[in-house]
Amino acid sequence: MHAITIPEPGGPEALVWDEVPDPVAGEGEVLVEVVAGAVNRADILQRQGFYDPPPGSSRYPGLECSGRIAALGPGVSGWAVGDEVCALLAGGGYAEKVAVPAGQLLPVPKGLDLKQAAALPEVVCTVWSNVFMIAQLRPGETLLVHGGSSGIGTMAIQLAKAVGAKVAVTAGTAQKLERCAALGADILINYKEQDFVEEVRKATDGAGADVILDNMGAKYLDRNLQALATSGRLAIIGMQGGIKGELNIATLLNKRAAISATSLRARPLGEKAAIVAAVREHVWPLIDGGHVRPVVDREVPMSDAAAAHRVVEESGHVGKVLLVVP
Amino acid sequence: MHAITIPEPGGPEALVWDEVPDPVAGEGEVLVEVVAGAVNRADILQRQGFYDPPPGSSRYPGLECSGRIAALGPGVSGWAVGDEVCALLAGGGYAEKVAVPAGQLLPVPKGLDLKQAAALPEVVCTVWSNVFMIAQLRPGETLLVHGGSSGIGTMAIQLAKAVGAKVAVTAGTAQKLERCAALGADILINYKEQDFVEEVRKATDGAGADVILDNMGAKYLDRNLQALATSGRLAIIGMQGGIKGELNIATLLNKRAAISATSLRARPLGEKAAIVAAVREHVWPLIDGGHVRPVVDREVPMSDAAAAHRVVEESGHVGKVLLVVP
Repeated sequence: MHAITIPEPGGPEALVWDEVPDPVAGEGEVLVEVVAGAVNRADILQRQGFYDPPPGSSRYPGLECSGRIAALGPGVSGWAVGDEVCALLAGGGYAEKVAVPAGQLLPVPKGLDLKQAAALPEVVCTVWSNVFMIAQLRPGETLLVHGGSSGIGTMAIQLAKAVGAKVAVTAGTAQKLERCAALGADILINYKEQDFVEEVRKATDGAGADVILDNMGAKYLDRNLQALATSGRLAIIGMQGGIKGELNIATLLNKRAAISATSLRARPLGEKAAIVAAVREHVWPLIDGGHVRPVVDREVPMSDAAAAHRVVEESGHVGKVLLVVP
Repeated sequence: MHAITIPEPGGPEALVWDEVPDPVAGEGEVLVEVVAGAVNRADILQRQGFYDPPPGSSRYPGLECSGRIAALGPGVSGWAVGDEVCALLAGGGYAEKVAVPAGQLLPVPKGLDLKQAAALPEVVCTVWSNVFMIAQLRPGETLLVHGGSSGIGTMAIQLAKAVGAKVAVTAGTAQKLERCAALGADILINYKEQDFVEEVRKATDGAGADVILDNMGAKYLDRNLQALATSGRLAIIGMQGGIKGELNIATLLNKRAAISATSLRARPLGEKAAIVAAVREHVWPLIDGGHVRPVVDREVPMSDAAAAHRVVEESGHVGKVLLVVP
C-alpha cells in the first residue's frame, strides 16, 4: 500500500507518499481500507519530530480515518467485512490501509458520506471526553472554547449547544467568528482585538465560564483562571501557547476550580474504547438526527498531505482538513 | 454569652474571651449550646487578619463545634432541643453558643463523648469532599497525604484505609510518622530527610500516587505533579507553602492528571449540606462502628484559645486541638 512516511522530521515537505508494507489486523483488530483521513495538530508535531507515536502503534501519522472494513482479526465480533466505518487511531491514518482495535470503530452516521465521516472521530472523542466526561458541562452552564473555528472548536460549539449550554468562542478573524455564530455560538470574541476575560464576564453578568476548553496551555493559564466561574473546570487539550505557566493557587482555591489536561492518543485501549462507546451512545444520535454536523474546510489528496499541513499551520481553515486517498 | 473576639488582628494574644450578645437561630437554623470547638489553620489566618469570615456568618472564629441543641429556628425539622450534635460552621465556634444551618448538623457518633465529636466536622467534611467526592479515590489506589499527623491527615489516613486504599504520608518527625503508622499509613516519609517524589515512586513500583491531598500549595506544586500517577488527581486544600507556583502543563497532560483546589468555608449552604449528608451516609457508619476515630491531641479551655493557637502554630500536635467551654 501507500502511506505518508516521514524519512526526516521537518517542514511540510518532510511528508512523503511512499510504498510500504500492508498492515495486518491483530487480535481484536480490524483492517480498514481507508477512504479519507484528517489532519490534527498532533500530526504536525509528529512531522516536526516532537511527538513520537506511542509504543506499538503505526509509525505513520494520522489519528482518524474513514473507510471500509477489509478484514477482521481474531476475536472481533459485531463488525463485518465491507462495513463502512470511521475510527479513532493511535497513528497510521495517512495510509491506504490501517489496522484498528475494534473498540475504536464507529459506524458512519446517517446522512453523511464516507469521506465526511473521517472528520469526526478525533474531534468528537476529544470534546466529549474533556467537556462532558471530565469537565461535566451541564445544561444552562457556559462553555468557553478557544479556537472556536478549529475542528475541535466547531464540534464543541455544536455539542454544547445541543445539551443546552451557552457557548463563548475566541477566534482571530470576523469571518471565523461568523462561522462560529452560524454553528450556534452565543458570545463571539476576537482575541486579537478583545480581552476574553472581560468579554466572558460581561456576557455572564460577571460570573465567568463554567467550563473552558483550552488549546493554548501556558499562555492562557492565568487568564483562563480569571475567566472561570466559581466551581469552574478548565480542560486543557493543547499547548500551542507553551508548556510552563504560573498557577495562582489562591485563585483556584477561592473559585473551588479544577484544571485537567489530557490527550487521547496515549490512553490505554480500554479508556479509548470507553470514550468511543460513550460517544456512540450520546453523540452519534445527535449526528444521525442532523443536529450536529462535521465541519469540513476542504479535501486534499492524501499524497499531497504537505499542502494540507500548510493550510492548518497557517490557520487558514475552518473545521477539518480531509486527506482523501487518491 | 462569652466568645473569643479579635479586637485587633495579631498573634495568639489577639484572641480575647469576652462577653458578647447571644446569637439567634434564624430560618432553617438551630442554636447550639457549645461544649467544645476545635482549632483549624483557617482560624489562625483569621486571627492574623488574612481571612475574613464570609458575608453573613459569625465574626468570631471557629469552624466546628459540638454541643446540645438549645433552640430551633423556624422551618427546622428532624432535630429536637437537647439533641447532642456536632456541626460544621462558617464561623462562631469559639463561643458558648452558635447558630447553625440545620444541614450542617451531625449526630454524635456512637461511643464518642460529646467533646470528642468537636474534632470531627471539619476534617471529615474536608477529607470526604476532596479525596472521595472530587478526587474519587478508589480501593487499591494510593493516596499521598501531606502533613499526615495533622487533624486532616489523621482522618485522611483512616478513611483511605477504610475504603481499601494504600496510604503514603509525609511528616516532619519520626514520632509523628509512628502515629501515622499506628493509624494505618503504609508508606512513611520524613519530609525533612527524604524526597517524597522518590519515596512514593519506590513504594509504588514507579507508578506514583493516584490521589494527593496537599496543604502546601505552591511549594509542592511541581513535586506533587511529579509524584502523581497517570490519571492522578491533586487535591489542594491549603497554601502553607505559598500561592503562586509554576505549573508544567506538559507533565499534567502527559499524565492526564487533574488539579483541584477548594475550601469548605465559602461554599454555599446547599453544597455544605450535600457534603454533610454524604459524610453522614458514608463516614458516620465507620465512626459508629469504631473503624475510624477522631485523633485528639489535647483539650484547652476555650478562654485560653491563645495557648491552643500556639500549639498549632508550632506544629507541636498530632490530630486536633480541642477548645472546651469552661
